Parts: sequence; C-alpha cells; structure tokens
Amino acid sequence: MTPTTLLAIVLGVSVASLAVAWALARWVLRKDDGTPEMRAISDPIREGAKGFLHTQYGTIAKLAGLVTVLLFVLYAFVRKVSPNDPVGTVTLALFTAAAFVLGALCSGLAGYTGMWVSVRSNIRAASAARRSGNEAIQVALRGGAVSGLMVVALSLLGVGGLYALLYAVYPESFIGKIPLMIVGYGFGASFVALFAQLGGGIYTKAADVGADLVGKVEAGIPEDDPRNPAVIADLVGDNVGDCAGRGADLFESTAAENIGAMILGATLAFGAKQSDGAPAIVAPIAFILFPLVARAFGLVASIIGILKVKAASEEEDPMKSLNRGFAWAVGLALVGFVVATRWLLHSPAAPQAWWHFALCGVIGIMTSWAFVWITQYYTEYRFRPVQMIANASTTGHATNIIAGISVGLESTALPTLVISTAIIAAYKLGTTSGLVNASGEPIAGLFGTAVATMGMLATAAFILAMDTFGPIADNAGGIAEMSGQPPEVRHKTDRLDAVGNTTKALTKGYAVGSAALAAFLLFSAYMDEVGAYMGKRFDSVNIAIPEVFVGGLLGAMLVFLFSAWAIQAVGKAAQSIITEVRRQFRERPGIMAGTEKPDYSQCVTIVTQAALKEMVRPGLLVVGMPIAVGIIFRFLGSWSGRPLLGAETVASLLMIGTIGGILMGNFLNNGGGSWDNAKKYIEMGNLGGKGSAAHKAAVTGDTVGDPFKDTAGPSLHVLVKLLSTITLVLAPLFLA
Amino acid sequence: MTPTTLLAIVLGVSVASLAVAWALARWVLRKDDGTPEMRAISDPIREGAKGFLHTQYGTIAKLAGLVTVLLFVLYAFVRKVSPNDPVGTVTLALFTAAAFVLGALCSGLAGYTGMWVSVRSNIRAASAARRSGNEAIQVALRGGAVSGLMVVALSLLGVGGLYALLYAVYPESFIGKIPLMIVGYGFGASFVALFAQLGGGIYTKAADVGADLVGKVEAGIPEDDPRNPAVIADLVGDNVGDCAGRGADLFESTAAENIGAMILGATLAFGAKQSDGAPAIVAPIAFILFPLVARAFGLVASIIGILKVKAASEEEDPMKSLNRGFAWAVGLALVGFVVATRWLLHSPAAPQAWWHFALCGVIGIMTSWAFVWITQYYTEYRFRPVQMIANASTTGHATNIIAGISVGLESTALPTLVISTAIIAAYKLGTTSGLVNASGEPIAGLFGTAVATMGMLATAAFILAMDTFGPIADNAGGIAEMSGQPPEVRHKTDRLDAVGNTTKALTKGYAVGSAALAAFLLFSAYMDEVGAYMGKRFDSVNIAIPEVFVGGLLGAMLVFLFSAWAIQAVGKAAQSIITEVRRQFRERPGIMAGTEKPDYSQCVTIVTQAALKEMVRPGLLVVGMPIAVGIIFRFLGSWSGRPLLGAETVASLLMIGTIGGILMGNFLNNGGGSWDNAKKYIEMGNLGGKGSAAHKAAVTGDTVGDPFKDTAGPSLHVLVKLLSTITLVLAPLFLA
Repeated sequence: MTPTTLLAIVLGVSVASLAVAWALARWVLRKDDGTPEMRAISDPIREGAKGFLHTQYGTIAKLAGLVTVLLFVLYAFVRKVSPNDPVGTVTLALFTAAAFVLGALCSGLAGYTGMWVSVRSNIRAASAARRSGNEAIQVALRGGAVSGLMVVALSLLGVGGLYALLYAVYPESFIGKIPLMIVGYGFGASFVALFAQLGGGIYTKAADVGADLVGKVEAGIPEDDPRNPAVIADLVGDNVGDCAGRGADLFESTAAENIGAMILGATLAFGAKQSDGAPAIVAPIAFILFPLVARAFGLVASIIGILKVKAASEEEDPMKSLNRGFAWAVGLALVGFVVATRWLLHSPAAPQAWWHFALCGVIGIMTSWAFVWITQYYTEYRFRPVQMIANASTTGHATNIIAGISVGLESTALPTLVISTAIIAAYKLGTTSGLVNASGEPIAGLFGTAVATMGMLATAAFILAMDTFGPIADNAGGIAEMSGQPPEVRHKTDRLDAVGNTTKALTKGYAVGSAALAAFLLFSAYMDEVGAYMGKRFDSVNIAIPEVFVGGLLGAMLVFLFSAWAIQAVGKAAQSIITEVRRQFRERPGIMAGTEKPDYSQCVTIVTQAALKEMVRPGLLVVGMPIAVGIIFRFLGSWSGRPLLGAETVASLLMIGTIGGILMGNFLNNGGGSWDNAKKYIEMGNLGGKGSAAHKAAVTGDTVGDPFKDTAGPSLHVLVKLLSTITLVLAPLFLA
Repeated sequence: MTPTTLLAIVLGVSVASLAVAWALARWVLRKDDGTPEMRAISDPIREGAKGFLHTQYGTIAKLAGLVTVLLFVLYAFVRKVSPNDPVGTVTLALFTAAAFVLGALCSGLAGYTGMWVSVRSNIRAASAARRSGNEAIQVALRGGAVSGLMVVALSLLGVGGLYALLYAVYPESFIGKIPLMIVGYGFGASFVALFAQLGGGIYTKAADVGADLVGKVEAGIPEDDPRNPAVIADLVGDNVGDCAGRGADLFESTAAENIGAMILGATLAFGAKQSDGAPAIVAPIAFILFPLVARAFGLVASIIGILKVKAASEEEDPMKSLNRGFAWAVGLALVGFVVATRWLLHSPAAPQAWWHFALCGVIGIMTSWAFVWITQYYTEYRFRPVQMIANASTTGHATNIIAGISVGLESTALPTLVISTAIIAAYKLGTTSGLVNASGEPIAGLFGTAVATMGMLATAAFILAMDTFGPIADNAGGIAEMSGQPPEVRHKTDRLDAVGNTTKALTKGYAVGSAALAAFLLFSAYMDEVGAYMGKRFDSVNIAIPEVFVGGLLGAMLVFLFSAWAIQAVGKAAQSIITEVRRQFRERPGIMAGTEKPDYSQCVTIVTQAALKEMVRPGLLVVGMPIAVGIIFRFLGSWSGRPLLGAETVASLLMIGTIGGILMGNFLNNGGGSWDNAKKYIEMGNLGGKGSAAHKAAVTGDTVGDPFKDTAGPSLHVLVKLLSTITLVLAPLFLA
C-alpha cells in the first residue's frame, strides 16, 4: 500500500463516480420530456431555478471573493509567524486561499450540476408515470443520484487531488503536515453551503408562505393553481432548498470530515509508539489516507445500491424498492469498511486496533439508523407526538402551536442520548485499541470518534440521492396535476410525492446526526492543529476560566440570534412576494378570470432578490462572530500573558455553539415536521378533516413550521460545521 | 470587627426586618376590608389560595421528606469518606440533612406568610382606592413588602443563624469550613422554589387558559365574568404564580448566593499571601461574613425605600412614586456597599482591594439596570419588537407566532453581551485587586464576580415588594370590577394594575439576570468545595474530554426537555379545568342565566390537583438528572482511574445547562411578554382594535406566550440555581 496506490484508488473512484453520474444524467435526459402541457409548467420552473442559481451564485461569488482576499491578507500579514508553520508564510497564505476557492468552486459545481439535472428529471418522471410506476421511480432516483454522486465524488476528488498535488511537490517527510494546508478547502465548502442553504431556505419558504397567504387566504384559490403568479416560484423553491441546499450541506460534511479525520489520523500515526519508543505504525500514510479510501468504498457501495432500485411490481410501495437499494448500499459499505480497516489500520504493534475501529464504523452506521428512526417517531402521524398536535388543533390555533413547540423541544432528548452514547462508545473503543504514546497513554480515542463519523457518512451519496428524489417527485406531482393528467397517472405521481416527503424528513435527521457526530471530530482536529502550530499539546478547553465560559455563552447565543434572523428573513422576503402578487391581481384582472397568464418570472425574480438580500445579515453573523471573538480574546490574552486564550475561547464558542446548534436544529426540524404531518393527518379526514376548525388551526401550525424546518433548522446543520471549518482555517490567527 | 459583632449585625438586622414586615402587615390589616360585594369576590380568592398552598406544601413536604432521608443515607453511607471532611461522617450527614430541612421550611414560611398578607391586601387596596389613589398604592406596595422582607430576612437569618450556631460550637480555626456544612440550606431553598414556581406556574396558566377557552371562546362571556366557574381559580393563579413562586425564586437566589460567596470568601481569605508568605488578610472572618453584612445593609436600604413610596399628588403616575422609592433604595444600597467593602475588605497588604470590590458591586447594580432596560425594550409596545409582532398579526395567526418567536430568540443577544461583559469586568477587577497567593498569582477574580452578584441582589427586597405589588394590584382591579365599583374607583385600580404589569415584567428580567450572574459564582463555589474535599485544587472543566463534553450536551438537553414538559403540563392541567367548566355549564343551566352561583371552589380544587400532579415529572427530571450523571460518570471514572471524572462531568452539565437555561429563559420570558403587549397594543385601538382579525391573531400569540412567560420561563431561573445547589450538596458523592 504505497501512497501512490492509495491515492490512485481514491482519485480513480472519484473520477469513475463522476462518469457514472454523467451516464445516469444521459440515461435520464434520453427519456421523453412529456406533452406540451407538461412543458408549459416545467419550462418556467427550469428557467426560474436557473435564474435563482445564477443570481445566488453571483452573490456568493462576490462574498467568497472578499473572503479569499481577506484570508490571504490575514494569513500573509496579520497572523503571527510560527516556527512550526508547515511552509513559508506567503506560500501558506496562497495555498490556503487557493484551497478555499477550490472548495467553493467544487461545492458550487456540484450544486449547479445536480440542480441542472434535477429540474430536467421532474418532467421526465411525470412523463414516465404515464407508462409505468417503476420507470418513474427510476427516473426520479437516478436524477437525484446525479446530485448525490457529484457531491460526494467532487468532495473526494478535491481533497484527494490537493493531497496528491502536495504529496508530489513536497518531500516524503511532509505527509503529516499536508492536511494543515488544505483546511481552506473545507472552509470554502462550508462557506458556499451556508449561503446556499440559507438563501435557498429563505427563498423556498418565502415563496411558499407568500403564495399561500395571497392565493389560498386572500384570493381563495387552491394550492398549485396556475392562476397564482407565485406558483412557479413555489415549485422552484423545492429545488433550490432541498436539492441545492442539502447538496451543499452534505458536500461540506464529507469534505470537512475528510480533512478533520486526516488531521487526527496524522497525529495518531506519528504519535503512536511501542514500549521501546519505536513507532507503532509503520506506514503513517495508511492512517492519513484511510478516510479517503473508506469514503471511496462507500461511494462504490452507494452506486451499486442506486442501480439496484427497481420496483418488484407496479403495485409495490415505492418506499420498499428504495429501502431494498439502501439495504444493498449499507451492506456493501459495511463490508468495504471492514476490508479498509483490516487493510489500512492493522498494525502488528496493536493487533486489536483494526477491529476496534471497524466496530466504531458500525457504531456510526447504527447511529444514523437511530436518528432516522427517532425522526420518524416524532414526525409521522402513526405515532403519539403528531397525534397529540392534531388533537390539540381541535381546541384552536394557540393549543396547536403550544403542542408543536413542546413536541419539538421534547424531540431533542433521544437524539442527544444517542449521540452521547455513540461518542463515548467510539472513544472508548479507540482508547482500548492498544495504540499508545511514548508514555504508554492511549491516544486513539479521538480517531475512534472520527471513524464512527466515517461510518455514518459512508452511504452519504445514497442518502443524498433519496433526498433529491424528494423535490423531483414533488415537482413531478405538480406538473402532472397542473397539466391535467388522467387520475391513474396522478395516482402514481402522488405516491412518488408521498415517498419523497418521507425521504426528505429522513435526510434531515441524517444530516443533523452526522453534523453532531462530526462535530467532536472537527473540534479535536482544531485543537490538534493549534497544537501543531504552537509546537506543544493543546488539549484543554477549560470553561471554569471566565473568558472561556463567556466564549461558550456567546456561542450558544449565536445559535439563538442566527435562528431569529433566519426566521425573520423569511417573513421579510415573503412580504415582497405578497406585495407583487397583490399588484398583479389588481392591475391584471384577467388573471383571476383565467383569460390572462400571470407573470411568473417577475415573482421568481422578486423573491430571488429578496431572499439573497435577507441572507446576508445572518450569514455574516455566523462568519464574523467566531473571528471577532477569537481576535478580541487573543489580544485580551496577550495582555495578561496567556497566549492560548484566544484559541481556547474560540474552542469553547465552537463546542458550546455546536451543542446549541444540534439541539436547536432538532427542535426546529422536528417541530416543523410534526406540524406538517399533523395537518396532513387532519386532511386525511381525521378530527373533522379539511375545512374544519381543527384543520385551520393545523394550517397555522404548518405555516409556523415552514421556516423552522426548511430555513433555520437546515441552516443550523451548516452553521455547526461552518464554525468548525472557520476555526480550523483561522486558528493561526487566534494565537498570540 | 470581631465575628460576634458581625454576626450580631446580621442577625439583628434580620430580626429587625422581620419586625418591620410584621408592622407593615399590621398596618395593612388595620385598613378596612371593603363592602360586602367586594368580600364576596375576595373571600373565595383567599380561600382558593389557601387551599392551593396547603395542598401544594403537602406535596412538597412529602417530596422533601423523601429527599431528606435520601440525603442522609447518601452522605452517611454511600459517599466516600475523605480525610478532608470538615467533621465526622454521621455529623456531616445529619447537619446537611437538617440544613436542607431548615432551608425548605424557611422558604415555605416566607412564601406562605407573604401570600397570607397578599390575599388580604388585595381587597384593602381596592377599598382604599375608593378614598385615595395614594393610599391604594401604599396598601398594595406595603402588602407586597411583607413578602419581600420576609423572603430576604428569613434567608439571611437562616444562613447567618446556622453560621453563628456552628461558630459557637466549633473552635475558631474552623471558620473556613463552616460554609461547606450549610450548603444543604441552599438546596432546601432551591428544592422548594422549584416546585413552588413550577406548581404555581402550571396552576396559574392552566386556570387562565382553561377559563379563557371555555368562557371567552366557547360560552362567549367576557373575561373576569362572575358566571365563569373558573374565574376565581384564575384570580387565585395570579397570587400563587407571581407572589409565592417568585418569592421562593428570590429566596433561593439570596440564600444560594450567600453560601456560595462565603465559600469563595473563605478560599480567598485563607489563600491570599504576602510576598514573605505571611497571610495577606488578617481577619479571614471579615471576608467570609462580608456577603451577609452587605446583604443586611441592602435590606435596610430596601426598607427605607419602601417607606419612602408616596404619591406626590392624586394625579401622579403611580410608577413615578415607585421609581422614587427604588432610587432611594439603590442610592442607600450603594452607600452601604462602599462602607461595607471599606470596612471589611480592606487589607493593608492589598490597599487597592476594597475599592476594586466596591466597583464590582457597582457593576452588579448596573447589570440589573441593563437587564431591566433590555426587558422593557423587548416587551413594551413603545418599541420596535412588539410593534413588529402587532403588525404581523394583521396577516394572520401564523405570522404573529413567527414574529413572536423570532423576537424572543433575538432578545437573548443583548442580555448575553451584558452578562459576558459584567463577568469579565468583575473578574478583571478581582484579579487586579492585589490579592495574590503564595506564588504571586492573582486569586481574587472569582470573588470579584461574587461581589458583583451581591451588588445586583442588594435591593432584592425592594424588587420583590414591587413584584408582589403586581398580583395585589391585579386582584384589586378584578375585585373593583366584579363588585361593580363606580368608574372613578375603577380608573384608580386600573392604573395600579397597569403599573403592576410593568413591575412584574421587570422583576422577571431582574430574576434571570441575577440567576445568570450568580451562576458563575455558584459553580466556582462547587469547584472550591470539590477541591476542599479532595485536598487539592480542582480548577479545570475541560470540555475537550469526551465525557465532560457529553455532560454539557446533557445539561443543555435537560433545559430543552424540561421546557417541553413544563409547557405540556399546562396543557394537560388546562384540559382538566375545561372539562369541569363544561360540566358545570351543562348540569346547571342557571349559571349562564345568572340565577345560580357556579361552584368556584370545585374548579380551584381540580386545577390544584392537576397542577400538582403535572409538576412532578419535570421536577424530578431536574433533580434526578444531575445526580444520575454524576454517579454514572463517577463509576466510569473510577474504572479508568480518573477520580475527578464524575465531578468534572457534573460541572460541565451545570455550566452548559446554565448557559442553556439563561438563553431559553430569556427567549420564553421575552417572547411571552412581547406577545402579551402586542395584544394590548391592538386592544388600545391600533391596527383594527378589539374584535378585528389582527386582534384574534394577537390573542393566539398571547395564549401561546402564557405558559412560556409564566410557567417554563420563570421555572428555568429556578432550574439554573437548583442545578448549582444540588451539585454543591451532592459534590462529595461524585468523587471516586
């Protein structure tokens, strides 16, 4: 296992996966694109999504350009030069800035391509439903898989490629320092992810709330009615929020997790000693590259799983065929994981180590299952929580809201217990692996938690394919309905849509679970990095020190304030579309009469501009606050002779901010999801059904839940990881 | 300044304050108790409150009895005996259990007496309003002052008396260990406070929501209509929630803060050295007893302030006369503080120290002002946030809710910044005071934060008098209205009521602010205590250790889960009163016709039982979780050879739970307060006024806010302090 072999495997699998994505896209695009009536609906969605992405990426590019320059200046001129720098100051600054740009570009590319295919798959899935349910599922899933594969493969290609480049340029002894030089890549990915998820989330809910308030409430026309000028904006929203947003979210997860795990792997591989002081690990490169190889194996497993999805019969529940594919992906990922641990993490000096790490991977996979199960319990109407909310709706709007909020708050408890158990168990498996430092102390605990995270993210490509399946199926349903397809076709697309709702909810549970598990790994990587720059161990974040405690207080506050601003942004952006729809109804009475086509694109443009304007304030808060705290406390620390104070205070902000983000994210996601399904439960004819007083109260809850579960909640997953990557990148700045 | 003199001052002022409270009660009770019509309303309120308190204290007594036995057993048999124990095992166990009982009894006595006077002051204030507005204010405030003085004086008498007792029994050298023996007192106070606030909070909002839903919504009768069987339960609720609940809350604050500050004072006084190794502080007792003396001075200042409240003319805004009294109290407290610091904290070895600490006190007082100001900004309709909610109400229920939640979340930011600044500034003043240990390191930082907390709590008695003024004025308004007083009398009671609403909101800001500032002092005391038992310094809570991080995660989760259960409890208890009111309307049609009197007491009994049943689950969660975490991680720690793991994990749970509690408490209090006033703003005739669609939406928000601001929010202040006192008491158990 020479480094060259390992890198060849990683890069080879990445490129092969991109080729598979390309082939799947070709397969989908070769399908027929439906009737002219269908295209009349689908074309504006495609155009709207394109318009949004162009404008959004334009804004993000400007912000990213600013950050690139800032990053270079901070690294080259502001940072205190340390004798432990991996390379010279300007080289390091250049490389960090370039890695940031590359990370941002790859994330953007993955999001754009996935979206490009997804807005073309929707009409093809709708059209395929005219022939066969199985074909419709395959079109929707393979269309979604393009997004999933692009995201994971590009993330792997970027990290692996950067590593390979630096490996080729620098001498062999340098391999342990390379991860420090590519942290910019993770930050670039996070930066784009934050704005993609936040902007997309604000867009989708502003359009949704705006369309509903003027259409359903004021004008009294049904949902998805072509007379509503905001209806296309609403359908565009499903794509930009779930598809582009969640894609960027998981791109970031996999990139940041890879880099963090490589840093921990390097520390472990060079620190592990035998009792005579000789290195315990003969080939450190195997530990450093293990995360990339394991991810590559997971990618292969996901591809096979995706290709295995096929309905057994026309009548079968589509969820069943998806589950069969997922079972293939999980099973193969497990096998791949065991093979990779035995191959790369086996050390004769610690014969137990490899299977301890394999078990860590199993813990990660079990954790993802537990999260999916808990999410279902709190958000599906088969279970007590959603039924409690539905019952509370019978006594009015207020009791519905109170019930939903209490369910959301309660739903934080079980995931916390699961994550706590997973962290401690994986850590314990790591410490008992037999890998010790020169003093005989176990040092592989953190690497154990890192391996558990890798296990959780092994099937990320499959999960993401299922997630993007959601908006494609949702859009296919809208197209079938608005183009007046016969009932048997609409029955098929409705079934797809229902499955899409489930997969979207599950992915959110998965995303927050992986963020939580990855968090511990990422802040350990941050501390290793600070230690590497200082040339001594940095292993204490002592919140009994007032400044460090205050850092934590500010971190938790950041989560509350960010959530407040994200929610407010939806309200403000919705106001702009309400004004526009009212104007169109007023100035062009033919719209309501059905004789005149509304101006869909004007609505799309307006909500795009509003969403992008509103995302700037919460976005800059997240980016600015850790930097401000780090720099302020760095100077407070250097006055009182504590050079690590800035780094330690930021670590506290990061860790306690992460705790707050995980809990608040769960609260918002699950609260929103349970309100949504309580409404659906009543709409199925329970407790008075559609139009009853209970239904009106349930609609209120659903509307309140929209910005919770589709804007603030998913943005918090990204926030948590962005805090990690930004501190990883800026760590050298916080050292006095 | 011999210990005897200092203790004589403390005990003398406590007893004198109780005498003043008795005299004020006599003064109030000598006032006439109104017309027979008034008594027809007031008598059932008094009876209902008495019934609730008896039942509630019965439940609390049973739970407290259980805890007393448990505490004794844990201390006597389970705890690992340490060579650093202050006294023998059984003596320590007995004393801790006895101090717990005494703390619980004093808290109960203060709450009961305050309530006894308050439910007799309401009718007298209503009756006085027939003669003069000034007299009505004085009756209401002095009635409230009985509660305020009882609370602070009994807290001081308990801590001071226990100290004096132990001082008399044990030798002079023992003075530093006495605080360790009276930690049970603080826990007893917290334990009662939690259940008093939680039970009272559930009661008051269950009655309120229940009365509104059946009365206003179903039967269509106005608020405070005598035909509603739940109307008396609703009026009782104002007393048990705001008066008894908040009284117990601040009793706990002052008791826990006194004990915590004494522990820190002892550590500092014995640890401070001159450069030649001689003690820097010649009379350690002065530092240990300083918190008690400063509190005694504050009590005198509050009494003078209360007696100074007098309307300048009949037309003057009652708030102005309260503010004049408060200014007297603050001014005198400041003078007393400076005198006390100069007298007791001056040390020739550190001539700067006393005025550094005096400045810490000033920081505390400024912090309380800042909190009061921020609370006003977020909850009064003069400012942007409440107006934003009112405007959002015009587009429906959902937008009202979204706006209120975002305002509540946003309102956490400024208080966090204020608290962060106060903690760091007071700590800095402490470290630069010139007091150093044998190695020349500054050690007075934590004592600086303790002194700031003392400054904040100096005027607690006045604040509490204003708070209890609230329910008295509210009840006086209800009695005047329901007994059909002429408009000029009702105008006067309405003005009182409006002022009462303001004072109640301000007290909540004050209570959460003091909880936040006291928190840092209390967990430092916990760490000092653990250090004293272990015989070595314990000064690190390192959240980079996975177990310690998990402790923090669980602490934050506790806050979310507790809030969920507290909110759910209100819903369940409200359901029971709804059923009862519906039954009375159905079985006794004469009630609605006005020919038959409803059975008020049955409603009171039912909601009492329901509230007390529902408080048990969230209450036991708060008490049980830190114990469970401490014991589990103690054993995990002893397996892996880390004797401090249990104590450190609990410290993390405590600190991060505190952060979560402060933020969540602010969110719930301010969110609820802003919804309330948005409704009032619309009711004043804005945006369509009463009966408009906007008003209906605003009523929804107000109802959602009720359990936020009067049940879960205030209980979180208590939770934060209970976590501190429970860990203080059980610290010895967590040591392996």
